[in-house]
Amino acid sequence: MPHINVDENLPGIRQLLAFSPQTAEPIGKLTNLLLRSNDGLSRADREMIATYVSYLNDCFYCQHSHGAIAACYLNDDKDLIEQLKNDYEQAGISTKLKALLSIAGSVQKGGKYVTEEQIEKAKQEGATDRDIHDTVLITALFCMCNRYVDGLAANTPTDLSTYPLRAKQVAERGYGNHIFSEQQPV
Amino acid sequence: MPHINVDENLPGIRQLLAFSPQTAEPIGKLTNLLLRSNDGLSRADREMIATYVSYLNDCFYCQHSHGAIAACYLNDDKDLIEQLKNDYEQAGISTKLKALLSIAGSVQKGGKYVTEEQIEKAKQEGATDRDIHDTVLITALFCMCNRYVDGLAANTPTDLSTYPLRAKQVAERGYGNHIFSEQQPV
Repeated sequence: MPHINVDENLPGIRQLLAFSPQTAEPIGKLTNLLLRSNDGLSRADREMIATYVSYLNDCFYCQHSHGAIAACYLNDDKDLIEQLKNDYEQAGISTKLKALLSIAGSVQKGGKYVTEEQIEKAKQEGATDRDIHDTVLITALFCMCNRYVDGLAANTPTDLSTYPLRAKQVAERGYGNHIFSEQQPV
Repeated sequence: MPHINVDENLPGIRQLLAFSPQTAEPIGKLTNLLLRSNDGLSRADREMIATYVSYLNDCFYCQHSHGAIAACYLNDDKDLIEQLKNDYEQAGISTKLKALLSIAGSVQKGGKYVTEEQIEKAKQEGATDRDIHDTVLITALFCMCNRYVDGLAANTPTDLSTYPLRAKQVAERGYGNHIFSEQQPV
């Protein structure tokens, strides 16, 4: 049960965004900017970073909602999303993305865990300053969102079959105010 | 040295906001909404939560910049800010704020660390749903900002005498675009 009085018909973070529409607006805008950009990192790369960080933070709602969105961009390759969580070094992704996921894994623990060696490795694999910046900020954003969702005990749909429906809408239309204004399954 | 090529004349997070002005806008807006509101929690309360969380995350820049801003709202009571970090239960603050700092301390570790007992205690001390929501989201926001600053190794001014100058400006004018558009000491 959520710790505060929210509309329990809405799932996950959308309960909280509806409770506080004023703060929802910049959260939605930041999420759109970071996850819908194609500057350097693809949308699939960005959603994979979000999924991996949410998995590390053990946030059921975020790891499954963003995992489903990532799958939308990856020809529905759900196995790749699972492989990403289990051992991304063995996943069929670029060496650049592997180096960036290593940085994400450190930032998830705390900013100071990032090493010069991790940054050098990412640059050797072709990561630009923008790629590194976006990886760190996407990771930091999900350290925020995961805590927002679980810190207020927002309801989490446990039926995984509902996530792809919502994911398709986000993949097509992006994040934003509509994500809490409509009564959709996820 | 920062991990990416930023303007090193700017301190802390302002280097990063200047590197990426597009994402800086919603980050500034969210920070303003959460730290400049007087709805329920005072501005001093909000800055104290931000300071405490940044201290727990060991982010030198954020704990000192927000500690200095909190002091601006508290008749320059720097001892209270130190007491907050050392043992807030003994600090001269309300029992409601103590209960909310307990929740903040849990959210800093991860959202799932918050217990029903902590929520009940906060409500018994007079915390509203809005107070609890804002405490969780301020904590989550600083788990993002602290990681952004330290994850990219932004330069941190070590001279603590420079922080109050900048704090006074923020206390008077708020967060926003001007925080990275001017060449000020902190």
